[in-house]
Amino acid sequence: MSDWLRTRPATTPAMLGVWDDAAMIGHALAFEAALAEASAAHGLIPHGTAGRIADACRTLVIDPAVLADEAAHAGTLAITLVARLRAVLPAEAAAAVHRGATSQDLSDTVMMRQVRGAAALLLADAARCGAALAPLARQYAAVPALGRTLLQDALPIGFGLRIAQWHAGIAAAARGLAAAVDAYAVLQFGGAVGTRARLDSRGAAIAESMAAHLGLTAASPWHARRGGVAAIAAAVAILIGALGKLAQDVALLSQPGIGEAREPLVAGRGGSSAMAHKRNPTNCQVALSAATRAPGLVAGILAGLPAELERGLGGWQAEAPALAELFLLAGGAASAAAGIAEGLEIDRGAIARNLAGAGLGSDIGDSEALVDALIRED
Amino acid sequence: MSDWLRTRPATTPAMLGVWDDAAMIGHALAFEAALAEASAAHGLIPHGTAGRIADACRTLVIDPAVLADEAAHAGTLAITLVARLRAVLPAEAAAAVHRGATSQDLSDTVMMRQVRGAAALLLADAARCGAALAPLARQYAAVPALGRTLLQDALPIGFGLRIAQWHAGIAAAARGLAAAVDAYAVLQFGGAVGTRARLDSRGAAIAESMAAHLGLTAASPWHARRGGVAAIAAAVAILIGALGKLAQDVALLSQPGIGEAREPLVAGRGGSSAMAHKRNPTNCQVALSAATRAPGLVAGILAGLPAELERGLGGWQAEAPALAELFLLAGGAASAAAGIAEGLEIDRGAIARNLAGAGLGSDIGDSEALVDALIRED
Amino acid sequence: MSDWLRTRPATTPAMLGVWDDAAMIGHALAFEAALAEASAAHGLIPHGTAGRIADACRTLVIDPAVLADEAAHAGTLAITLVARLRAVLPAEAAAAVHRGATSQDLSDTVMMRQVRGAAALLLADAARCGAALAPLARQYAAVPALGRTLLQDALPIGFGLRIAQWHAGIAAAARGLAAAVDAYAVLQFGGAVGTRARLDSRGAAIAESMAAHLGLTAASPWHARRGGVAAIAAAVAILIGALGKLAQDVALLSQPGIGEAREPLVAGRGGSSAMAHKRNPTNCQVALSAATRAPGLVAGILAGLPAELERGLGGWQAEAPALAELFLLAGGAASAAAGIAEGLEIDRGAIARNLAGAGLGSDIGDSEALVDALIRED
Amino acid sequence: MSDWLRTRPATTPAMLGVWDDAAMIGHALAFEAALAEASAAHGLIPHGTAGRIADACRTLVIDPAVLADEAAHAGTLAITLVARLRAVLPAEAAAAVHRGATSQDLSDTVMMRQVRGAAALLLADAARCGAALAPLARQYAAVPALGRTLLQDALPIGFGLRIAQWHAGIAAAARGLAAAVDAYAVLQFGGAVGTRARLDSRGAAIAESMAAHLGLTAASPWHARRGGVAAIAAAVAILIGALGKLAQDVALLSQPGIGEAREPLVAGRGGSSAMAHKRNPTNCQVALSAATRAPGLVAGILAGLPAELERGLGGWQAEAPALAELFLLAGGAASAAAGIAEGLEIDRGAIARNLAGAGLGSDIGDSEALVDALIRED
Repeated sequence: MSDWLRTRPATTPAMLGVWDDAAMIGHALAFEAALAEASAAHGLIPHGTAGRIADACRTLVIDPAVLADEAAHAGTLAITLVARLRAVLPAEAAAAVHRGATSQDLSDTVMMRQVRGAAALLLADAARCGAALAPLARQYAAVPALGRTLLQDALPIGFGLRIAQWHAGIAAAARGLAAAVDAYAVLQFGGAVGTRARLDSRGAAIAESMAAHLGLTAASPWHARRGGVAAIAAAVAILIGALGKLAQDVALLSQPGIGEAREPLVAGRGGSSAMAHKRNPTNCQVALSAATRAPGLVAGILAGLPAELERGLGGWQAEAPALAELFLLAGGAASAAAGIAEGLEIDRGAIARNLAGAGLGSDIGDSEALVDALIRED
Repeated sequence: MSDWLRTRPATTPAMLGVWDDAAMIGHALAFEAALAEASAAHGLIPHGTAGRIADACRTLVIDPAVLADEAAHAGTLAITLVARLRAVLPAEAAAAVHRGATSQDLSDTVMMRQVRGAAALLLADAARCGAALAPLARQYAAVPALGRTLLQDALPIGFGLRIAQWHAGIAAAARGLAAAVDAYAVLQFGGAVGTRARLDSRGAAIAESMAAHLGLTAASPWHARRGGVAAIAAAVAILIGALGKLAQDVALLSQPGIGEAREPLVAGRGGSSAMAHKRNPTNCQVALSAATRAPGLVAGILAGLPAELERGLGGWQAEAPALAELFLLAGGAASAAAGIAEGLEIDRGAIARNLAGAGLGSDIGDSEALVDALIRED
Repeated sequence: MSDWLRTRPATTPAMLGVWDDAAMIGHALAFEAALAEASAAHGLIPHGTAGRIADACRTLVIDPAVLADEAAHAGTLAITLVARLRAVLPAEAAAAVHRGATSQDLSDTVMMRQVRGAAALLLADAARCGAALAPLARQYAAVPALGRTLLQDALPIGFGLRIAQWHAGIAAAARGLAAAVDAYAVLQFGGAVGTRARLDSRGAAIAESMAAHLGLTAASPWHARRGGVAAIAAAVAILIGALGKLAQDVALLSQPGIGEAREPLVAGRGGSSAMAHKRNPTNCQVALSAATRAPGLVAGILAGLPAELERGLGGWQAEAPALAELFLLAGGAASAAAGIAEGLEIDRGAIARNLAGAGLGSDIGDSEALVDALIRED
Repeated sequence: MSDWLRTRPATTPAMLGVWDDAAMIGHALAFEAALAEASAAHGLIPHGTAGRIADACRTLVIDPAVLADEAAHAGTLAITLVARLRAVLPAEAAAAVHRGATSQDLSDTVMMRQVRGAAALLLADAARCGAALAPLARQYAAVPALGRTLLQDALPIGFGLRIAQWHAGIAAAARGLAAAVDAYAVLQFGGAVGTRARLDSRGAAIAESMAAHLGLTAASPWHARRGGVAAIAAAVAILIGALGKLAQDVALLSQPGIGEAREPLVAGRGGSSAMAHKRNPTNCQVALSAATRAPGLVAGILAGLPAELERGLGGWQAEAPALAELFLLAGGAASAAAGIAEGLEIDRGAIARNLAGAGLGSDIGDSEALVDALIRED
């Protein structure tokens, strides 16, 4: 039982890898190891004990499907994971595992490490888009083309201005995502109710050490304060939208009656099971499909914001799967858009023909200056 | 690479089985077999050819992960699946495979067979809810309890009236789902652009035969007319909402300051990794989490309704994963709700105490008659 | 302070009228009058008292803006409305006003009378679409045209088949809406907590009488069981989607590079403040804008389904404005679509040119038979 | 025809004023005046002409309902507004009106001026929340109270820690909104297709002058690049969520079986039309209702991001009404939350009783230090 056929076409293997079971278990065990080592560093447990826990975290092998069954039964991943960890440790070390932490500390921290890995993939693909689009925009800045509004012929633009707008949209969205991840993809560590009890007042110090171990920054507990997660989700969706805008335009421009640009031909991609002549805009399809699904996923995360008291019931648990889905979709969209940007086929003849046919002159206004401004804003 | 940990806690193994790769490949091959046999029945291809195709469909073994990679590259599942089928067949049979069909015929039909299987699971769990709730509602119909509006003490109700309302909500939603599935989970068969070309005017007859083979009903092609899919999605979300209503109420009633009812104690379920005394409403959590995620998934499907011309770009491809997710969540919610209903612990003492403490009398109006009416409406 | 500029362009004056303050106050007073008369009919209050209440309901004049301020302060419309009604009545009649009812009885019943009025407008415009599209579909059933999938040239269709698909989508959605309204747009009457207390066991009979007065059907109280509202909302959104599909296709077909069809030219409509030559598809714009907004509105209503106990806090109150918005949008979309359907300009020359240019033959398969089938399904 | 009864209870008069017809017309005329004066400043039209246009903009009186009818017919507000302006001007000035601009320049700029006004109201109410919550959090920082997770008793917290979390959530969301508005609520000025044609290469300078006139910053045209609008919308929804979190907690704490805190009693507010004893959490209701509706509205705006080419069809037009609705809801929620924060009634006796009853000790961990940290983060 697996669902490759449903998930794989919408995303990339690398992004799947960020969110898969192995990565999740790895992050969870890294959390427990970091907690033990930080606890030892601040005198809460012996260094030897911490070492044994960290060793066990490095070597423990768990069947994800069995773990998932157990987590589904228990209602939380941490309970079963911690039990398995304790089972391979001597009693004293077993007792020290997870001390001061709660299930949510583990799952939120795991999620945020995944967020950082996923965001890095997205920013890399956004950078690929930018690196491809900026020179293209400059190259075509002064090429008069037909501008279209409400799907009707409007007035001329420099063809590169359209490209520069794609560039600016993706670059701004990437900056927004980087800022949200930087601010909110932080360690969660507050214990059962966010008071950092049972840690002899060394909770803040332990959090700092754990964060350093885990490549995150520390923060006050945010267990029932989920605006940061929502901000990350919104930033991902806005990036998907910017990628979808590029895809929308390329799909429209590649209509046979227009023919000004299209995504590159890739062997074996974009065919039809019924029509041998077909060359479908498959990269556009991936990005536009992501843009169709993303808004509702954000809505689901926003809906959980009014979390009940010290840990929500329902809304919180709804967050992680939706956030993972958003990043998966963004991964597919960003990779698809980068493929479009890097291989965009532009037909100068069609551009000129369509413009001439419209009879609307060729005054492209400040297109060149605006291309320059839009690209420098990045 | 798999995502058990993210998907399993929200659903049941049975519902995962409906939507997994093996099921999907099975339905896809059944589609090709049914097409071949129907084509032979109506004289389009020889019976021997159809038999060879059907045999190959029964015996072909495909690695889902590889198939998913190929489908992701091609942009559609059918292309790669049909290529693999053709590869194991003699030339004449290979040429007859998929004749008259298009990728969407296959994927929509696969989806609708999955919908029928998934709906059957949901209706069975909804029936479990009904079978448990109806007698409980009658049993407690005349037990005066505090009614609460806007989370404040209001006036007395028969405790069973609240239960009867859960029953009525779930029963109505189940009827709505059954009706939507009955009307819209139908065969898709129209060929490349929905004209049933290349079938010598025998398309309608072939569709009837295929539908009979596949346990579906036939219908005019609906490739770019997606209201039926949206209606099914909405019906699933409404069922999730009705199950979530039950969960919401039980979670509120099981608050320690109220304590009138709670979900049954199940060994190993609802514990806390930090608090040994905790008994969390895990079934409620599953249903409420589903109810948080479902609305956005429906929004994503509704967003694709204005599909472009004869096959949409983006919106259509966004549908199937969202629909699968809805059914998975509903599966978890329905199973969780059935568990609550079948084992609901009701504390008559607490009910009486809370009512007496409120000092609002004990006039429960027509509660008993309404319990009767609500249950008979089913 | 009013918001004509924001609301009017998206809808019709008639639909605005259904949902405006005057209508709402009228329905609210009709509710109180019907309650009084039904209570008298079943012996709960004297006929004279009921008559005085009904008279007051017919003659009471209320400034909506003042009433809205009061309702905003009180937290519910009924409190302030009932107070105003009592203020103009003698003491005995004043005491009898609203007896046995609660605020939600009034507001839900008002909403459902508005739903019935709004649905009637939508069904009338959907019928206009059908009456225009059916003959057009038959007329163009055998006209070979280029079918397009994923925005690329695919294979030929009968041009009328595309029209018949629009027709079938709108007709099915209209049937779905009619069924949902018929089932769920019913009287709400349960009193404070849905027990029909304070009515001497005559609640069911009074509900029947009230429903007859108000042109609704009676039903068991559904105060915290909101699946019916959600079903109506989903049906409206699906209709909007079907109308949006027509608009999407016409907008794409009216692109200058394609030019096969466009919405009718209406004097003063579709111009541009910057481009005198522009002829914008304004009807398409209205329908597509509605289709963009509708999915999220449905999500907001679905999110409220797990209402808390006997009356929800937040979710319930979120429903009515979102439902009104959906109907307003649907009103604009249906009127716009009817305008498109009734005046659709089809360019046979462009259709023929585009088809010839694609070099894909002219086999339209079973288009004619399918047109016939799709129209007869209605 | 107006809809006070539907809109007013969800928001404040001040926020309604930001988005009403008078404000919108005022901003629209200010846009035309600023354009004329900026054009004169940069030599594009004579100063006298600009003065006459500016005078007309200050004195023109327009009936909003008539204007709305005209805008609905034309498909855009600018066309009819500009026509009315020209009608009161001599020919030369009439010809200079709106030169170089397009409808979207006007409507986007109007929207962004409204956004700035609306955000200022929200930030003021968020500041009221902060000013009330910070001292309260410190005051109750060391008061042991029962922490609750998944609606079950968990472990003790300092009661003030919960308050500090509300504070931190609202403050972070307010900062996020301020940043989004600062970055994206900027002038739109690009002309018909975003090239700033017809302005003799002085477009950038004119944009700078216009922005100064209008209290906005200038920016490259962003007509089809809508990520900024989406970022503002998301920030508003996240603020609504943070306010809703406060409301959720207060509503739960004010349940009679818990009774630890409740919103202040306000004469005439929170009553019931059926139950004289009722004291409903009406402020909580307003904020939670906003939190239910906001996610779907954001989804609707995100859905429009893949705008078609130089001006989208449908998605763009869907934005402004949804954004207005979000701000209206946020206005109601922020005002309601400020009212709660400023008058929160806390029952130390109930807090102590509930904690003692749970028998879970009184170790509140680092609550005091965390209160301090959370408040200083602001």
